[in-house]
Order: sequence, then structure tokens, then C-alpha cells
Amino acid sequence: MLLRHGESTWNAENLFTGWVDVPLSEKGEQEARRGGKLLREAGLLPEILHTSLLRRAIMTANLALDAADRHWIPVRRDWRLNERHYGALQGKNKKQTLDTYGEEQFMLWRRSYDTPPPPIEPGSEFSQDTDPRYAGLGPDLPLTECLKDVVARMLPYWDEAIVPDLRTGKTVLVAAHGNSLRALVKHLDGISDEAIAGLNIPTGIPLRYDLDENLKPLKPGGEYLDPEAAKDAIAAVANQGR
Amino acid sequence: MLLRHGESTWNAENLFTGWVDVPLSEKGEQEARRGGKLLREAGLLPEILHTSLLRRAIMTANLALDAADRHWIPVRRDWRLNERHYGALQGKNKKQTLDTYGEEQFMLWRRSYDTPPPPIEPGSEFSQDTDPRYAGLGPDLPLTECLKDVVARMLPYWDEAIVPDLRTGKTVLVAAHGNSLRALVKHLDGISDEAIAGLNIPTGIPLRYDLDENLKPLKPGGEYLDPEAAKDAIAAVANQGR
Repeated sequence: MLLRHGESTWNAENLFTGWVDVPLSEKGEQEARRGGKLLREAGLLPEILHTSLLRRAIMTANLALDAADRHWIPVRRDWRLNERHYGALQGKNKKQTLDTYGEEQFMLWRRSYDTPPPPIEPGSEFSQDTDPRYAGLGPDLPLTECLKDVVARMLPYWDEAIVPDLRTGKTVLVAAHGNSLRALVKHLDGISDEAIAGLNIPTGIPLRYDLDENLKPLKPGGEYLDPEAAKDAIAAVANQGR
Repeated sequence: MLLRHGESTWNAENLFTGWVDVPLSEKGEQEARRGGKLLREAGLLPEILHTSLLRRAIMTANLALDAADRHWIPVRRDWRLNERHYGALQGKNKKQTLDTYGEEQFMLWRRSYDTPPPPIEPGSEFSQDTDPRYAGLGPDLPLTECLKDVVARMLPYWDEAIVPDLRTGKTVLVAAHGNSLRALVKHLDGISDEAIAGLNIPTGIPLRYDLDENLKPLKPGGEYLDPEAAKDAIAAVANQGR
């Protein structure tokens, strides 16, 4: 089960966030609780949680699991589930970035598979180079990432940490971010480098994947627990920055 | 570092809670955030969290760690950090219980080391026998506990799960309950079966223990991060049920 965090304060302000550790907005907290309610109503009870190291995913999981009466399940957190690092764009307004750099460059940074934004300046306001949670990363600490980079760091975590839980038959909840979940869905559904640009994942609506013994989805694309709301939200994500 | 959960809705209503999984009250949520602020101000930054399986301890840790910017640390949860099981008293009003059974019986159940309350009826409203989080316990699922029972189930967790973290030099946060923390403090400070009756731990105020290489406290009794508030709160705990 995949769950993208609810709206953050910076989603609400239309800023590029990436690894900046902003909290959920009040709407985001409500989305998270509603996501938990959807889990409970569907009888889909997570038995283990995997999250990123960012509070918007952690809090979304906390609130959703509390609403589903599953707050007590085991948890693993890892930076490899973090949002894509947005490099020098972190903290910048999406609309202003679009106006300054133009549609083509903007969409290249947002949705091309292998063109990262310019790297963030170490020591600058929205850089993570002194953040204790990444102290162990050393030279692996990204200064910017494209989706290809996210796939490259996310997949080893999938294989080493999540697959073993799935192999024991557990219902796994992955609470993460727009781009780390796009990377995961790309892998699960075998989406091409080109086609992944068109895939958006809405916030706060659990996305269910049932996997066969080869960990291939029984139903490609999975199933949102609230398909109508997902459809509307996907359209809204695609229009960000406009 | 030990942290007793903030006020729960049932603390506020003066009910015996035990293993009943009630939420924090609004005051309890504030206490938790303040506990996190005390940690941050003292520069005491937990590197790993151990909690019970009960939401009042889990949510206290979530809110405190978020306030201390440590929401991303690893977590382990275990039933052996749960509150004492209060048996047939779970869900009963403390004042009414005092009035019904008298001071002597009441204090025996609340504070004697080895006299548990009557066992809870399996299948009754406040029993845990169908709770999925305890499904693995089988016949170890308690139906009532005295403090001696709590010591007996808590100490193996201390030895197997918490001590190894301490041995690596980590700052450990244990977010738990009045009686599971009394059991732990009894062990750390070598308090006798008789003297432990007089020890109360206030809610929401982090209690710091620095341990030597034999895991003995450098300062017996530890140090509350807000000693004045702790003194007032300890007096209030002692007067519960009056």
C-alpha cells in the first residue's frame, strides 16, 4: 500500500520542497486522517510501515495509522524513501520559476527523467549538509536529483528492506512522496522512462497494489481506495505551477 | 531518557486505564510538545526511541520528537513497555473504587508490589484478548498485573533491546507509562520492593539518566529536565483517587 503525504505548508504556498523538512498543513493533517479512515473501512490493515526521514511523510503515517487503529505496528525509516532532492530550486516558488525560466526548462526540471535542476549550494538556507539525519551519508548526500537518481537510490531499499517484508506475507504501508512513489510505481508497473513523465500520484489517498509471487502487480497501476477523489487530485497535481 | 506519556482522556476522567488504548487529552498533547521543547533546549537529542504499543505513549513520543526535530529517528515498539495491566479495574473510576473497597484495598491494588487486582474477564469490554497487536502473546497475555509482574516482563526487554542501544553509546528515549517506568527506575536505582510504593513519575517531563559502564546511574534518581514542575506533578500523582 502506497501513501503520498498530505498537503504540506509549502505545497499550499506552491514552493519547491524536496528535502526541506516542512510540516503538514491543516488540510494535510485532515487528508492523512482520512487516508487512515479509508484503510480501516477497506479492512486493509498495515502490518509494517516504511517511511522517509521527512516529517510530512512521518506525520501522515502517524495520523493515518492512528485513525486506522494501527499506530502500534513496527516502523522503518530511511532517507532512500525521501522526496526527490530539488537542488537549487528548493524554497523557490513554482509559478515564479515557470515565469523566469519558461515552460520548456520548467517542465524539463519537473518531469524529465534524467535532467536534474542545478545543484544546491552547500551551506545555503535550504541545503541539508549539516542535518544530523544525513550525517552517515557522506559523499552520497545528493545536492540535486532527477527521477532517474531517485530510482537508483530507492530500488536498493525496496529490494533490501521492503521486499523481505512482502515475502513474509505482510501488508506493507509505504508512506512517502510524489517522486519516490513515482519511482516505485515505475518499477512495479514497468513504466518506460518516457511514459513516467505523465504519471502523477495524489496526496493522502492510499494506493493499493496486490503483488504476485514475482512481485508483479495483479492489476497494473494498482487501485486507489477512493478512485473518484484520486482522479480529481491527479488532474490538480498536473496543473501545479500554472 | 525516560518520558511518561502526557495526560490521557482517562487520566482526566480519573479512570483506571491499564491496557485500554485511550488517546491523549488536549492537555496531554501540550505536555508532549513541551517535553520535546525541554529536550531540544537541553540539547538532549534522542538517537533511538523505544515505546509501548499504546497510543498515549506513541503519540507523546511522536509529538515530543517532532517538537525536538527528531521525528526521523529509528523506533522500536514492544508490549513489554506497556502500562501495568489493571485487570478487572480497567475502565473503573478511581474515586468510586476507593469508596467501594476502602483505602486499604485501594492502596494495595494501586501500590503494593505483589498484589494484582482481580483478573479481567476475557471478552469483557475492556479486555485485550481479541486485540491483534497482542495476538502473538498467546498464554503470556496478562489478565492482570502487579508491579512485580511488570518488572518481570519489562526487564528482559531492557536487557535484550535497550541495553544494546546504550552500549553503542546512543542517547535512548523510552516513552512509556507510570508503572513500566517505575519498574525501570526500580531496576536502575536499585529501589527495594517496599520503597518503590512511594515513587511517582510525573507525565510529560523528560527524566534524564546518565549511566556508567555498568549501566548504573551516575546520579541516583536521575534528573528531571524541569525539576520544579516535576515536584508539583509528583505530589498531584500521589493524590489521585482522592
